[in-house]
Amino acid sequence: MSKGVLGVDVGGTKMTAALATMGGQVVRLRRQQTQREEGAQGGFAAICAMVGELLKEAAQEGLRVMRIGIGFGGPVDFERGVVYLSHHVAGWENFPLRTELERRFGIPTVVDNDANAGTLGEWRFGAGRGVNDLLYVNIGTGIGGGIISGGRLVRGWRNLAGEIGHMTVKPDGPLCPCGRKGCLEALASGSAIGREGTERIGQPLTSEEVFMLAERGNPIAQRVIDEAVDALAFAIGAAANLFNPKRVILGGGVAEAPEALLLQPLRERLPRYLLPQVAEGLEVIRAQLGYDAGIMGAIALALLEFQSPAPM
Amino acid sequence: MSKGVLGVDVGGTKMTAALATMGGQVVRLRRQQTQREEGAQGGFAAICAMVGELLKEAAQEGLRVMRIGIGFGGPVDFERGVVYLSHHVAGWENFPLRTELERRFGIPTVVDNDANAGTLGEWRFGAGRGVNDLLYVNIGTGIGGGIISGGRLVRGWRNLAGEIGHMTVKPDGPLCPCGRKGCLEALASGSAIGREGTERIGQPLTSEEVFMLAERGNPIAQRVIDEAVDALAFAIGAAANLFNPKRVILGGGVAEAPEALLLQPLRERLPRYLLPQVAEGLEVIRAQLGYDAGIMGAIALALLEFQSPAPM
Repeated sequence: MSKGVLGVDVGGTKMTAALATMGGQVVRLRRQQTQREEGAQGGFAAICAMVGELLKEAAQEGLRVMRIGIGFGGPVDFERGVVYLSHHVAGWENFPLRTELERRFGIPTVVDNDANAGTLGEWRFGAGRGVNDLLYVNIGTGIGGGIISGGRLVRGWRNLAGEIGHMTVKPDGPLCPCGRKGCLEALASGSAIGREGTERIGQPLTSEEVFMLAERGNPIAQRVIDEAVDALAFAIGAAANLFNPKRVILGGGVAEAPEALLLQPLRERLPRYLLPQVAEGLEVIRAQLGYDAGIMGAIALALLEFQSPAPM
Repeated sequence: MSKGVLGVDVGGTKMTAALATMGGQVVRLRRQQTQREEGAQGGFAAICAMVGELLKEAAQEGLRVMRIGIGFGGPVDFERGVVYLSHHVAGWENFPLRTELERRFGIPTVVDNDANAGTLGEWRFGAGRGVNDLLYVNIGTGIGGGIISGGRLVRGWRNLAGEIGHMTVKPDGPLCPCGRKGCLEALASGSAIGREGTERIGQPLTSEEVFMLAERGNPIAQRVIDEAVDALAFAIGAAANLFNPKRVILGGGVAEAPEALLLQPLRERLPRYLLPQVAEGLEVIRAQLGYDAGIMGAIALALLEFQSPAPM
């Protein structure tokens, strides 16, 4: 009987579960909508149902599941496998997800937040392969991130590391959902770009529309993008001076913007905020996993302890 | 025969070498001035002379030296043990210090920059004991730093991590020795505090004198200190959001300032730049090793591979 793992990505709008080989090949996949009104108990029941089905399928495929990895949309106490809270669904506060799943299925389980899982996914299967020092920045509605340093995920003492989205960039800048002012997220997330475009151009715009207008030469839209790029360069430069990564990987919806509008100007702006020796050889590239980042992250999490460090 | 290690701290004004037990107890110590005009060759000869003497003394003490640790005042390629350059003395560019010492003495040798060594020293012997996630910030003429994450020193891919002194705080701020503007070092180092005090009060002042004036109620001096504290809070807050440390340790001459003028206002200011859950339980304390930081760092470096991670 071959060995395999199970990954589950628990997001705000959907949950995805997959059965994979030890090499990360996905064998079976299940997806379902998150029923927010059913709260944590409903979410937990749905996770259990998907895991149960996939375990049956694993048996049919002749795969023995060695570990379950859960990427959760909210902060998690990694050591104890306990959810601090969900960003999207009520009732997850202090939910002992690891213990509950291990009790039910008798399979070792690891639980982490989705930003850490996404970072592990890009490192193991995506744009971070072969690099032991990287910064992953996910730019969507909000901004999250993760750091691999010396071939290990940086967690911090309460597993809260990687919060580049809440680095202050402009102390008097716009209000952030976190309650403080001028965080990177309030300046360069998809919501922030949409908000600034809407305000300055005077019609409701998404961040995608702001990028489209900028591409067609609208100077106000170009200015909005330019300010977001500068905020990203500021924050990524600060992070790079602190941990000297080889590669910066941009994921999330905003990173899908045309290279000439986001990645290229970001590369040009970064040296302003970086020691020259830290800038030397630093790569800034787009993530590779796209919509699979969540589930591949959960699989990477499940595989983590089986995997040797990436080659230098 | 008992086991021991040798540490050497190679600074801009002096060199210190010590023989220590495996527990870090210093048995013998030697110090000498750095003869800058003799360049790297003179410096290397002086290191060899001190090491040679201490090895003789080790034999007399019945100690077998297992490793030599060198804390060097400038960036170092840790993997290869090669000095990139000295901040103080000419001729060190690409000097293969590890290989040369190993060839001469036949003892395994590790070479690292003094900021990393100082961080390891505070972690192993000073204010960082028992903590696996910490940020060390050394505020002297310049500002250096180091990060311990998950019980390991964060090095980055070229061993250049920890450069919190060159994080941009104010993009239009004063010029930094590194050539860019508004780095933390240009706003909160001893030199920066002295420069601002001198300019605004209109007489030549050191940073110590600015602190003294502030303590006696001089409002201009208080304002200078307040701005430096705010810059420190900004940069330390950014780093803490990224690494989620349990403890921040301030060392160097400026950290000797009265608690009420530096550490206390810094603790009060930090939450402005930090996610509340990252601020929770974060300790900000003074370094403990003082003038011994350099040599104890070199000893910690020599002991590193013999030492199990600090208990949680």
